Amino acid sequence: MLPAEIVERFERGELVAVIAQDEATLEVLMLAWANREALEATLATGRGTYWSRSRNELWVKGETSGHEQTVISVSYDCDGDAILYKVNQVGAACHTGDRSCFHRDLEITKLGEATS
Amino acid sequence: MLPAEIVERFERGELVAVIAQDEATLEVLMLAWANREALEATLATGRGTYWSRSRNELWVKGETSGHEQTVISVSYDCDGDAILYKVNQVGAACHTGDRSCFHRDLEITKLGEATS
Repeated sequence: MLPAEIVERFERGELVAVIAQDEATLEVLMLAWANREALEATLATGRGTYWSRSRNELWVKGETSGHEQTVISVSYDCDGDAILYKVNQVGAACHTGDRSCFHRDLEITKLGEATS
Repeated sequence: MLPAEIVERFERGELVAVIAQDEATLEVLMLAWANREALEATLATGRGTYWSRSRNELWVKGETSGHEQTVISVSYDCDGDAILYKVNQVGAACHTGDRSCFHRDLEITKLGEATS
């Protein structure tokens, strides 16, 4: 049973954003998208499954690359537009061969003052 | 200077998904959205700044709640549709009072087999 706030998004044709986080190191590995079919497949199989916005198709992470994702836990956020998969990631999560897709930085011009 | 792949998204009227991660504990705190103005404000000020899809306005995290986000680093992903802020978060990141917005779990029916 999916929560109503997520089902309502799917019924409006929206996708939810899915963050995949390494369950051991807590590194954020990638962000991709899920429709209902992708999320239900992930819950049913324990394999990270997504909806490709560019190819308009379901994809199981690692199906072609071998870089599979075993999903250890799935949580969802307060407004139901984002999902967090904690995963055991084989090899690189990024198609570039990098462990994480977030391997490039932007420069912060002015550092904020520490607030705690 | 923002990377071309991100600027192109903004010029098409798209938002990018922004993950805020606690820079000390690496907990994923929230997912929100940025347009160009929000991302540039974050880089210019070092304060977590977003675009509200529900209110259609810019918001600086903590401006009303006091739960400010000092942004320590900003990275972006391989296809330029997602940004990762590592932050120093004062208090709760979630409007519910929870530290993280991802405080509810979905049950995985079949656990995937360990792949490493």
